[in-house]
Amino acid sequence: MTGARRGPGRPPRAEAAEGPDARTRILEAARAEFAERGYDKTSVRGIAKAAGVDPALVHHYFGTKDEVFAAAIEVSFEPELIVPAVLGESTEGIGERLARYFLSVWENPATRAPLLAVIRSALTHEAAAKVLRGFVLRRVLERVAADLDVPDPKFRAELAASHMIGIAILRYVVRVEPLASATPDEIVATVAPTLQRYLTEA
Amino acid sequence: MTGARRGPGRPPRAEAAEGPDARTRILEAARAEFAERGYDKTSVRGIAKAAGVDPALVHHYFGTKDEVFAAAIEVSFEPELIVPAVLGESTEGIGERLARYFLSVWENPATRAPLLAVIRSALTHEAAAKVLRGFVLRRVLERVAADLDVPDPKFRAELAASHMIGIAILRYVVRVEPLASATPDEIVATVAPTLQRYLTEA
Repeated sequence: MTGARRGPGRPPRAEAAEGPDARTRILEAARAEFAERGYDKTSVRGIAKAAGVDPALVHHYFGTKDEVFAAAIEVSFEPELIVPAVLGESTEGIGERLARYFLSVWENPATRAPLLAVIRSALTHEAAAKVLRGFVLRRVLERVAADLDVPDPKFRAELAASHMIGIAILRYVVRVEPLASATPDEIVATVAPTLQRYLTEA
Repeated sequence: MTGARRGPGRPPRAEAAEGPDARTRILEAARAEFAERGYDKTSVRGIAKAAGVDPALVHHYFGTKDEVFAAAIEVSFEPELIVPAVLGESTEGIGERLARYFLSVWENPATRAPLLAVIRSALTHEAAAKVLRGFVLRRVLERVAADLDVPDPKFRAELAASHMIGIAILRYVVRVEPLASATPDEIVATVAPTLQRYLTEA
C-alpha cells in the first residue's frame, strides 16, 4: 500500500511501525492489555510497548485511553458486521439469532476475555462505565433500536442486553450449575422467546 | 439476655463486646468493609476493628473470611424471610413479586451498596465467586427451585436471576438510558411476564 512511497533501500521496519498494520496491532495489544490488567492498570504507554510502536502513534490513531478502550471493545463486538446480521431481513427469529450470536461470542475464549475485561472494568471504574455507556451501548443498542417496531425500542433493546449480560456473568464468571454446563441450544431454547417478545411485541 | 450471668458491678462493655449484639455488629461491619474496600482488601482483622471486637470473636461466630462474606451477603438478601414471601401461596403473580422485590432491594442505597460489592467481588476474585456460587446462589435458588413445578427448576431459577442481575448492572452501575431513569413499575411491567414464564411454564 505505502510501498510506492518507499525507496528500495528503506528498511521495512518503518512500514511495520507506521503502516496500516500498526493500527491493528495497537488494537490487539489494547485488547490484551485491558483483558489482562484491567482498565485501571492499563496505560497508553503499556499498549504502545506491547504493540511495538511509539505512544504518540496510539494517540494519533485513537486519542485518549478511553477512546482506545472503546475501540478495543468495538473490535470485539464488530457492531458494523453483527448488528445487520442479527437483525436480518425480518424480525422473525430475531430473538434466537441474538441469543445465538451472543453465546457464540462468549463461548469463544478469544472473544470472552476482552468482554469480561470490559464488564469487570465497568463495574469497578466509573471512567470505564462511562465509556461502555457512551461509546458502545449507545452505538450498538441505538442501531438495534432504530430497526425495531415496538414502543420504547431502546428500553426494550436494553432489557434484552441486560438478560444476555446477566447470563454471561452467572454462566462464565460465577459458573452456577446447571447454567454453566447447559448447552448453548438449551439456553437459546428458553431465552429466545424472551428476546423475541422484548424486540417485537408491543 | 445475658444480664442474668452478670454481677451488678460488671461493666456493660463486656456485654457489648461478647453479647448477642456483637454478632450483629460484626455483620454490619463486614457489610460496610466489603462494600467499601472490596473482597480482596477486606480482612477479618479489619472487620473486627470496625466492629470493636477481637478478631477471635469474628472467627468464633463466622469462621473464615469467606464465611463472613457469605453471612454478610445473606443478611442483605434475607433469604429466610424473602424466599417464602416472593414464592407466596401460589405461583400466580410470582414473576411480578420477584421483579418488585429485587428492584426494591436495589432502589434502596443501604442494600444496594453491599450487593454491588458482592457482584464486583465475584467478578474480580475467584474466591468471592466461589462464595456466591456455593453459599448464596445455591441456598437461595435451591429454595426457590424446590417450590417450582417446571422442568429443570434450578436452570429456570438461574435464568430469572440472571435477568435481574443484568438489569441491576445496566441500570445502577453502567446507567444506560432510558433503563436508568425508568420507573420500577415500567421495568416490572415488561420483565414480570418473562420471570413468570421461566418459573411457571413447562
